[in-house]
Amino acid sequence: MSLVVRNIARAEPAVVDALAGYGVATVHEAQGRKGLLASYLRPIYRPCAIAGSAVTCSVAPGDNWTIHVAVEQCQPGDVLVVAPTSACEDGYFGDLLATSLTSRGVRGLIIDAGVRDIAVLTEMSFPVWSKAVYAQGTVKETLGDVNLPLVCAGALINPGDVIVADDDGVCVVRRVEAASVAQAAAKREANETDKRARFQAGELGLDIYGMRARLAEKGLRYVDEAP
Amino acid sequence: MSLVVRNIARAEPAVVDALAGYGVATVHEAQGRKGLLASYLRPIYRPCAIAGSAVTCSVAPGDNWTIHVAVEQCQPGDVLVVAPTSACEDGYFGDLLATSLTSRGVRGLIIDAGVRDIAVLTEMSFPVWSKAVYAQGTVKETLGDVNLPLVCAGALINPGDVIVADDDGVCVVRRVEAASVAQAAAKREANETDKRARFQAGELGLDIYGMRARLAEKGLRYVDEAP
Amino acid sequence: MSLVVRNIARAEPAVVDALAGYGVATVHEAQGRKGLLASYLRPIYRPCAIAGSAVTCSVAPGDNWTIHVAVEQCQPGDVLVVAPTSACEDGYFGDLLATSLTSRGVRGLIIDAGVRDIAVLTEMSFPVWSKAVYAQGTVKETLGDVNLPLVCAGALINPGDVIVADDDGVCVVRRVEAASVAQAAAKREANETDKRARFQAGELGLDIYGMRARLAEKGLRYVDEAP
Amino acid sequence: MSLVVRNIARAEPAVVDALAGYGVATVHEAQGRKGLLASYLRPIYRPCAIAGSAVTCSVAPGDNWTIHVAVEQCQPGDVLVVAPTSACEDGYFGDLLATSLTSRGVRGLIIDAGVRDIAVLTEMSFPVWSKAVYAQGTVKETLGDVNLPLVCAGALINPGDVIVADDDGVCVVRRVEAASVAQAAAKREANETDKRARFQAGELGLDIYGMRARLAEKGLRYVDEAP
Amino acid sequence: MSLVVRNIARAEPAVVDALAGYGVATVHEAQGRKGLLASYLRPIYRPCAIAGSAVTCSVAPGDNWTIHVAVEQCQPGDVLVVAPTSACEDGYFGDLLATSLTSRGVRGLIIDAGVRDIAVLTEMSFPVWSKAVYAQGTVKETLGDVNLPLVCAGALINPGDVIVADDDGVCVVRRVEAASVAQAAAKREANETDKRARFQAGELGLDIYGMRARLAEKGLRYVDEAP
Amino acid sequence: MSLVVRNIARAEPAVVDALAGYGVATVHEAQGRKGLLASYLRPIYRPCAIAGSAVTCSVAPGDNWTIHVAVEQCQPGDVLVVAPTSACEDGYFGDLLATSLTSRGVRGLIIDAGVRDIAVLTEMSFPVWSKAVYAQGTVKETLGDVNLPLVCAGALINPGDVIVADDDGVCVVRRVEAASVAQAAAKREANETDKRARFQAGELGLDIYGMRARLAEKGLRYVDEAP
Repeated sequence: MSLVVRNIARAEPAVVDALAGYGVATVHEAQGRKGLLASYLRPIYRPCAIAGSAVTCSVAPGDNWTIHVAVEQCQPGDVLVVAPTSACEDGYFGDLLATSLTSRGVRGLIIDAGVRDIAVLTEMSFPVWSKAVYAQGTVKETLGDVNLPLVCAGALINPGDVIVADDDGVCVVRRVEAASVAQAAAKREANETDKRARFQAGELGLDIYGMRARLAEKGLRYVDEAP
Repeated sequence: MSLVVRNIARAEPAVVDALAGYGVATVHEAQGRKGLLASYLRPIYRPCAIAGSAVTCSVAPGDNWTIHVAVEQCQPGDVLVVAPTSACEDGYFGDLLATSLTSRGVRGLIIDAGVRDIAVLTEMSFPVWSKAVYAQGTVKETLGDVNLPLVCAGALINPGDVIVADDDGVCVVRRVEAASVAQAAAKREANETDKRARFQAGELGLDIYGMRARLAEKGLRYVDEAP
Repeated sequence: MSLVVRNIARAEPAVVDALAGYGVATVHEAQGRKGLLASYLRPIYRPCAIAGSAVTCSVAPGDNWTIHVAVEQCQPGDVLVVAPTSACEDGYFGDLLATSLTSRGVRGLIIDAGVRDIAVLTEMSFPVWSKAVYAQGTVKETLGDVNLPLVCAGALINPGDVIVADDDGVCVVRRVEAASVAQAAAKREANETDKRARFQAGELGLDIYGMRARLAEKGLRYVDEAP
Repeated sequence: MSLVVRNIARAEPAVVDALAGYGVATVHEAQGRKGLLASYLRPIYRPCAIAGSAVTCSVAPGDNWTIHVAVEQCQPGDVLVVAPTSACEDGYFGDLLATSLTSRGVRGLIIDAGVRDIAVLTEMSFPVWSKAVYAQGTVKETLGDVNLPLVCAGALINPGDVIVADDDGVCVVRRVEAASVAQAAAKREANETDKRARFQAGELGLDIYGMRARLAEKGLRYVDEAP
Repeated sequence: MSLVVRNIARAEPAVVDALAGYGVATVHEAQGRKGLLASYLRPIYRPCAIAGSAVTCSVAPGDNWTIHVAVEQCQPGDVLVVAPTSACEDGYFGDLLATSLTSRGVRGLIIDAGVRDIAVLTEMSFPVWSKAVYAQGTVKETLGDVNLPLVCAGALINPGDVIVADDDGVCVVRRVEAASVAQAAAKREANETDKRARFQAGELGLDIYGMRARLAEKGLRYVDEAP
Repeated sequence: MSLVVRNIARAEPAVVDALAGYGVATVHEAQGRKGLLASYLRPIYRPCAIAGSAVTCSVAPGDNWTIHVAVEQCQPGDVLVVAPTSACEDGYFGDLLATSLTSRGVRGLIIDAGVRDIAVLTEMSFPVWSKAVYAQGTVKETLGDVNLPLVCAGALINPGDVIVADDDGVCVVRRVEAASVAQAAAKREANETDKRARFQAGELGLDIYGMRARLAEKGLRYVDEAP
């Protein structure tokens, strides 16, 4: 039996958009260095930067039937997150599905599998983070679930969680933590702006962060010639 | 002993060019989801899209001697397909060989190994799909064969088969099937154009493909809250 | 205990700059096909081409503390080379460290690990060759060494060695061999210019390199039809 | 801040032991083909077959400090499940920790990282399923959490879930589903015993499962010679 | 449409058995260093050494239905060769199918995918060479072909070709070449027996193969201290 | 030009043998967590444990000629260390070379490439740590060097360095540090024996290592229920 959960809670649109602005590296730090999907998920074009609410979709290996079911559950501002039930690099998704998602206001696709038609997707500016680019077609025989929690590229994604994705990769923020993470990210970014100016002026991290004493304590020793 | 087969049959130029226009994803579907080379073959620049007749060339690991032999067998409209006799990522091919192939009207290179000088190849607009980018030089001591069938990136390639390659990867079409595959691809593309318009207008795949009844039969259930 | 070696010898700036001009493939051939780092090191943007003197830095897995120590040892014209003491893809380096290195005249980063903030690094034109793009943050608890020899992506790098990096990857030239390698590269390049013209004119490598006799000797046989 | 959750619920010991007897393949089928950890987790010796209640432990890359914290939370019948916060193959675990776990009645270790001292672990009959065998030592500087849910080798593990592991790999069963999964597994095994006898007697799956009609419907065609 | 070819030609049983005795390394050398399947195919237990006639079977990703069809085409002395139409590590094959094949006199399985129940398969002494050990179950929805040529782990296998497999991996011998390869292997083995005795007696390969002159010619130089 | 260095210094036999007894994990810790070769080097059989003086040998991809040259430089108590000049998994080494090395008292082979005839090598008790098991044969056309420093599986090996290898992998100890590392290893082992007894008696690492105070300082918090 397969399930589609229709009514999922989503984060505030303003919070989602704020997270998009901070980007993956800052958001992931702001929430305590957690939530990253595996580094093998790569964007099909760069630069790219989005955030949106996760609609999750599990699929059988080599079978993209459930994606069609998931599309109907998507709203403007969503990001579709697809994971196969066992490792597969087939091209589950191409330009027709992207056209369908675009018509519903979906902001992008995260897929722990393959994607195809990437020349057209790039022209359409429909961003995809995938494990592979592979034209291999799929069948429509076996169903997965829509909007149940799933593991995608090593990270747990709940439906309605916020997905932040850019050139650095993909990060998930729990829906209930999204507002506080956005605040922490804002703070972190302000702090970085200040530091960037000091680095630009030639100051060293050793001094900006006051590291010299602790380095000496840890036994760091400077010598003038290699031993 | 090594062999060079001189007179290979090639597909009709018009058919080859038509296949280039449809692209890898469509061609592979049109011939029954077969013929794709492995997804680890990536183009050195994008966008790119070619088709041509395969001149095949096997090479010893770390030895590109046979490529020089193969160049002489190439004609305008060909694509050179190179596979090592055991896995190797060395840079078998660079800008001098590309210049030589260009002067003969060759459209690109498919190599289940490494390539180098990719900045120059990109400037030359000489497309290459390779397993690696690696400057490692090769020797000229051991011979392979030219224009015998070989397995390249997991697919059997016969000399004279049609190679279709674009941003999505690489596909092989049997020479004798090329015309019928081109026809099937044309049909498929026409069909997709129609569907694209419907998707753009917001229609769902569930309805366009009439999937709802079969989904219910398979036990798909919609719920309003996660269990 | 951790060591920082302060005074390392560097190659002549003119030699370093000459090596940048020849590029990785030519330099590696000119020194006898040695010195390449593994092909999994990829530039974050293309085209890119630099050379510089190596400042080396070992880091603990998931810990970028030592990079801050290394920055202070960098001079204009240097390239920072970072390798973890065990395999790690974390994002050791981002835009703040790049700003710091830029303010010191450093030309780029080679890192056998991950990098982040690549959209900003690309805007800054700060080139990085890395094993991964990954936003994963690091801690500052455990020290490595600065300016001791290390193995990075399979190649031994001594502090002060010349790093040459471009779209094809990364190559190391021993400091004391830099001048003679630059000469050999110049010679090789002159030779290639001549050959390029002949290839462009349609001459074959078989004739340019006089290969036909030796091929026959090795048993190469031409047939008109596949056996 | 790091957390240790002290009182976790565990499944009935009898149910856990029953699951060990059915093995990974049967248990995973019995619960609807879900719960498998990635195939790269391999046992250090074979044959081996255990089940136990998961005590979960996240660790920083290259840092095994939290494992010492986790040991104290283990009871007889538990299985320790360790996952790094970013990919790492270091040898987090060796014979001393195994001795400690053995003295507490722990049945084995699942680790999405490296293990060492495997000759001694094998002699001790302490089973470990790991991503790598690697002697690389770790530090004790950064803390993770104990008994919070985590993703290990691509699967979500909650503390107290039942881990089933044997020569085929590792599977997780949700604690609250453990009893019903054990029942389903018992049924499945009974069914297989019957089928095994029929297969042994030479009956074909085509007939045992009544597949011939549906195969014909799907268009399967028998020919006497290759086309 | 899917095809099953019923009547395939097989090599002489005596020739097949002779090839089993020579083993993979010798057979592959005897036929000119060709025919090896990729090194990622590993036996589930060691030692093991078989040869048999290939019955080939392509399968959809995550779908083992066609294996049941293939079983019926197997005869005593056959080896079943299975390859998915796109990369998949699922556990297509377990102890029930092994029981079925054993009852038909099949000697083993080569599968470019996953296998499960390996503890039982090992007890049964049913040898399997696979890409992965993974319990992941499969469905029965999509058909492949039986006894058409296919590419398995990078090598072309025709139905009726001879498969030789042992601890070193897997090799294919064309059916029509099997007798002459067996002869060449016998010769090679005799030759090796003689050489083994000379090596055992302390003679060097340099002398046995008369390499010293050619080494000097190639520029090999002996020095007493490192330069 | 290729070089063979004839007279290399070796460590004291007693020191080498002592290191074999401590094993890879202990030796690597005793020398400050350095010297490990990559974890992908695996022994062909287990258990196995050796130490010996490194005779180094670089080889061209797919070409084992230099190994024959290296054999002559081996003495009783040596370990042959082979690395290709670019990545290659071919079967450079089989039972004839093992017979030759055995006749010279060589203790084993470390090879960053493939090995074959492993059934015979296992019977002979000739241990090999390799990157792959692969029957692929090699040619004898291109020379490498013997007894120059090389990088093998990510670690720098100088001729005469001590190689320690066991079930956990492979470690290199600098020749001049061998005696002091052996002493440190002896001390470490004595210390571990004591700790093992305490762990066996049920004491916790938290108490044996006095970790509780520092853990509290780092912010570790115990709770009775998951938050």
